[in-house]
Amino acid sequence: MEGRRVETNALDPAVLGAVLDGTWAAARRRGRETAADPRAHLPAEGTLEELRAATTAAVSLVSDSGLTRLPLPESMGGRNTHAEYVAGFEEFVTASPSLQIKAGVQFGLFAGAIQHLGNEEQHAKWLDDAVSGRLLGCFAMTEIGHGSDVAELGTTATYEPETGEFSLHTPFRAATKEYIGNAARDGRAAVVFAQLVTRGVNHGVHALVVPIRDEDGTPLPGVTVEDDGKKGGLLGVDNGRLAFDAVRVPRENLLTRYGAVAADGEYSSPIESPGRRFFTMLGTLVQGRVSLDGAAVVAQKLALDIAVRYAGQRRQFASASPVEETRLLDYQRHQRRLMPLLAEAYAHGLAHETLLHSFEAVFSGEDDSDEARQVLETQAAGFKALSTRAALDTIQECREACGGAGFMAENRLVGLHADLDVYATFEGDNTVLLQLVGKRLLQDYAAEFKDIDFGGAARFLGAQAAEHTLYRTGLANVGRAIGDLVTAPVKEKRIRSGKVQEALLADRVETMVAGLAQALRPAAKMSTADGAALFNRHQNELVEAAIAYVELLKWRSLNAEMHRLEDAGRAPAEAKALRRIRDLYGLTLIQRHLSWHLMYGRMPMARARLIDETVNRLCAKLAADAQELVAAFGYGPQQRRAPIAEDAESIRQAEAREYYRRARAQADWPVDEKELRRRAEKRG
Amino acid sequence: MEGRRVETNALDPAVLGAVLDGTWAAARRRGRETAADPRAHLPAEGTLEELRAATTAAVSLVSDSGLTRLPLPESMGGRNTHAEYVAGFEEFVTASPSLQIKAGVQFGLFAGAIQHLGNEEQHAKWLDDAVSGRLLGCFAMTEIGHGSDVAELGTTATYEPETGEFSLHTPFRAATKEYIGNAARDGRAAVVFAQLVTRGVNHGVHALVVPIRDEDGTPLPGVTVEDDGKKGGLLGVDNGRLAFDAVRVPRENLLTRYGAVAADGEYSSPIESPGRRFFTMLGTLVQGRVSLDGAAVVAQKLALDIAVRYAGQRRQFASASPVEETRLLDYQRHQRRLMPLLAEAYAHGLAHETLLHSFEAVFSGEDDSDEARQVLETQAAGFKALSTRAALDTIQECREACGGAGFMAENRLVGLHADLDVYATFEGDNTVLLQLVGKRLLQDYAAEFKDIDFGGAARFLGAQAAEHTLYRTGLANVGRAIGDLVTAPVKEKRIRSGKVQEALLADRVETMVAGLAQALRPAAKMSTADGAALFNRHQNELVEAAIAYVELLKWRSLNAEMHRLEDAGRAPAEAKALRRIRDLYGLTLIQRHLSWHLMYGRMPMARARLIDETVNRLCAKLAADAQELVAAFGYGPQQRRAPIAEDAESIRQAEAREYYRRARAQADWPVDEKELRRRAEKRG
Repeated sequence: MEGRRVETNALDPAVLGAVLDGTWAAARRRGRETAADPRAHLPAEGTLEELRAATTAAVSLVSDSGLTRLPLPESMGGRNTHAEYVAGFEEFVTASPSLQIKAGVQFGLFAGAIQHLGNEEQHAKWLDDAVSGRLLGCFAMTEIGHGSDVAELGTTATYEPETGEFSLHTPFRAATKEYIGNAARDGRAAVVFAQLVTRGVNHGVHALVVPIRDEDGTPLPGVTVEDDGKKGGLLGVDNGRLAFDAVRVPRENLLTRYGAVAADGEYSSPIESPGRRFFTMLGTLVQGRVSLDGAAVVAQKLALDIAVRYAGQRRQFASASPVEETRLLDYQRHQRRLMPLLAEAYAHGLAHETLLHSFEAVFSGEDDSDEARQVLETQAAGFKALSTRAALDTIQECREACGGAGFMAENRLVGLHADLDVYATFEGDNTVLLQLVGKRLLQDYAAEFKDIDFGGAARFLGAQAAEHTLYRTGLANVGRAIGDLVTAPVKEKRIRSGKVQEALLADRVETMVAGLAQALRPAAKMSTADGAALFNRHQNELVEAAIAYVELLKWRSLNAEMHRLEDAGRAPAEAKALRRIRDLYGLTLIQRHLSWHLMYGRMPMARARLIDETVNRLCAKLAADAQELVAAFGYGPQQRRAPIAEDAESIRQAEAREYYRRARAQADWPVDEKELRRRAEKRG
Repeated sequence: MEGRRVETNALDPAVLGAVLDGTWAAARRRGRETAADPRAHLPAEGTLEELRAATTAAVSLVSDSGLTRLPLPESMGGRNTHAEYVAGFEEFVTASPSLQIKAGVQFGLFAGAIQHLGNEEQHAKWLDDAVSGRLLGCFAMTEIGHGSDVAELGTTATYEPETGEFSLHTPFRAATKEYIGNAARDGRAAVVFAQLVTRGVNHGVHALVVPIRDEDGTPLPGVTVEDDGKKGGLLGVDNGRLAFDAVRVPRENLLTRYGAVAADGEYSSPIESPGRRFFTMLGTLVQGRVSLDGAAVVAQKLALDIAVRYAGQRRQFASASPVEETRLLDYQRHQRRLMPLLAEAYAHGLAHETLLHSFEAVFSGEDDSDEARQVLETQAAGFKALSTRAALDTIQECREACGGAGFMAENRLVGLHADLDVYATFEGDNTVLLQLVGKRLLQDYAAEFKDIDFGGAARFLGAQAAEHTLYRTGLANVGRAIGDLVTAPVKEKRIRSGKVQEALLADRVETMVAGLAQALRPAAKMSTADGAALFNRHQNELVEAAIAYVELLKWRSLNAEMHRLEDAGRAPAEAKALRRIRDLYGLTLIQRHLSWHLMYGRMPMARARLIDETVNRLCAKLAADAQELVAAFGYGPQQRRAPIAEDAESIRQAEAREYYRRARAQADWPVDEKELRRRAEKRG
């Protein structure tokens, strides 16, 4: 006899899962399976040393999975597939963000820097040991005094032709390398970024491979290591400080792709302009941002998976029925708390897939034009800034939506928040990244902004842009039809029109950028100080314009995948759900900036008032499908590992219900005083 | 020779500090001083057992401070001053939120329940041991199955006249007491809330004092204790689960203020209606919410103190000057991130002072009318919901504004977030509390809502209201003059008018409530199920209306204190700063809901566009005074204990500057490749 499905028209999570998992689904599955290995999970409690040791031990699971070898050239046994590696690697967040970051330092940053900045001999010398995890290494860029402003690092590497060595030096305390993963405990070597000096000339920041500990783990002469101690999260990662006192480094340890020093001290580089050279070098390190974007999406999904499953079981307060309490997920407010975040997770996940494609094209060599690189860098900066913010907000909302149970460490939500917290400020502080995106928009809008030095953070961004040929963000003219679309009567159906949503989102970006350009134009004729001050008076608008642009890009990724599924025609129910997700994401963005759309006459008042009602209805419809929508994330109990997400709550409720059912049947079951009074009143 | 002040017109933090510290300033100072004692600080690292032991040891510092005795009646050596105790007690958050909560369980909840629910003999028997910390106790209300819906607790206390004892019983797993502070390790007794059954009648939830462990700490027969283990924060608090298997409790242990059982089993109560009795009993426990509101404000201030001090020192990216980088606090975006939160902290702090006055009036007996109690309960619910949310958002923004340094445990921000996290859902889940406020607004608006059973969460609220005589929230007519105010030409000065701000905020509440009332009116004639469904379709609006109302109340508290300082006329500079704070708080609220004000025609478009610019200017002005504005919080290094808030960063910068100054003076200082190229181009 065939089992009857209780809910007809239930969505098939596999269909939506295939959409979300995208091109590198197999790598994702491999990542998830490896992440399910109990050895990859941090102990629930322990000293810093115990947590670090467990994390270090788990790093080999990542290399054993075979993922870390994928990006290597074929000559070294790799497949030159970069997105494939990143897609699988991101899933390690489900095991433990500490493991993801520790492995990211080792394979993405340390090995990645050797691969992307080194020559073939250097690859042969270090790369195999690095990707296999035999040589544990650090990525020593940030200093106490300079995080975001990398060009101003204080560490120096001065070439001495008489010995054929560099002298690596930390000239003052603020130049100490800080927050360096693998530094406090495990690292035997480090890729150190320093001002390269030879023949009395400072050629700017370059990277060198520097041994920092002997095989026993004792710091080498001249290397001072300090432990950062306890952090707010990522307790399995041994962050620390590194300082160098005239440490000798062989000339051959300078990673030479963008700058080499001959034995006699002569400097050479394939890129003449020092600025362009610097930004090209940094550009090769974009993988860190790409994978943080994906990791943030994984964390966001995981939190929603837990909270939605709990909200589907947990009941509180009797409602329509006197004997059965109402499920949390049936409360409108609960739907309004979780469903827009669920839609956002879909949008961010699909936007990340777009980013992975940009990344793969550039790094596989399929299209590593300047234009492709710039698009990639802009996407990576903007997407990472919004997805890490969204992950934190989502985890927090999910934690609160689970009440006291959400605060228990075993249910993982608070730990996820603590671990993900720093994603908002490392690999590029989100505020700095958004300015980078905003500046890019300005420069696209008007060529005259190319060469302006605005001062401040803008100087960094300005310099970067000035060194690049500029390519358009493809924004112009996209919102042209807006007047027609919006002045036509906008019924609910029209508000849910994708064309209207896109027009509103795109027009806002364009109008904001045009306004900024006009306001900032006088800066071209000002002194640096005045220009900087003018720029600063519009800094907030610039960041907001960047956010608006990234939101548009994310919406477009979601919209494109929705149309693909609709056009394929094979899964109408899932396509319909994805359309609701697209609409909820779009309308949430439009509602968030509704005063703007109103102030600039983009939306009639009467129509604007319908949005909230439409959002309510979309939330209710998605809540009805919510269990399938989170099942599509592809996680099982071994990735979630949160007791409240499984069925303990349902089982307890069933036990309580059964108790009351039996009790009521007993003759001596106490009657409520309230009931007695009601009866007395009736008699009265 | 007298030192010259570098900045003239600097604000005097003492003046603003006196405003913030309010009526119970002396108690606050005592709290802060005690909290500065190193014994009150948790070790940086340690096992759960070590952190718990340290916290337990520190509890005696709280009682030794003399604060915990203040609320006792004069006959027991107290002063019957309740707000004085709470004001001092809140400051223990600066020592450690674990200590604040552990002490709150002991003195506020355990001792408080005995005081407010017990009779004089019971006071004589337990209260002195409780307030001195000799008898460590739990407050066992919440169960796994029922947190917010206290009326539905499963635990039973059945009176047996043959033995003169109650039999306390946990009938099923979901009825296990859960998240109970002091349960896992320290508690010797517990105030247990259970359904009181005697002579075959269930009289609803009552509280009993129940011994749970012997002097050695072994659980007593029939008492099962489980440890909640690691939580997301508050690691010093030993939360656990308590289950009872027919545990014998003497009749005299029932706290009898609102319900007693005679030896023969006859039940009696001074309050006839079971519903009214229940809510009156719960009402006496409002102190928990009052002190969480204040504790959240303390945490918010502490986070801002740290982040503003750091932002005043930390520099990144050269701007106007080529040799000196720009301070974080001089960046507009940084100002926009921190200054509205600073204004909010002032508003929430002064609103809390209002709440303390309501609390003092009721609990001292000065005015314990039903009306005063209802106002107190509504304020406590609403203020706590917004201040705990604000604390979390502020701590997170401050953490990110401090970059990587903000993520180090030693700088406390991540720890504060983890600890404060649960404040959003305990002592009343914020969403449930806001519904309570919203329901109150509805019932004030129209008497017909008094008796409707809306079902769901509303049933609880409805029942509560039905048992009370209703008093008006004082909202009606407050926004009447709005048309005149806003249709007059609103220049910037007008937007900064307090009357305009109040009118906009108040009118929004009234319009929302009126709209809700109209939408919900048909519920009166519906079945319970249909009424519940209708109510649920407007739940989100109800919560939003409640938030709007609480924002108005908080704005009014700030506004009143500002006028008091202005009217006193003795501190014009500080009064001017407080006016800016009031305006920034008011405009931030208006801007947050700007689309509403526009959609409902409350503000002309052209004027609305000026708000953002005004906010920018207010932020810049407040940033210039920010160091004094946080100094007014009254914390020193011993309360902050965050290295980045002190002068390490300035010292490092001075060292680096000195290094570069000397280096540039040397003949062999390397020249930049960029500079060489510029020179070459010039020679060209």
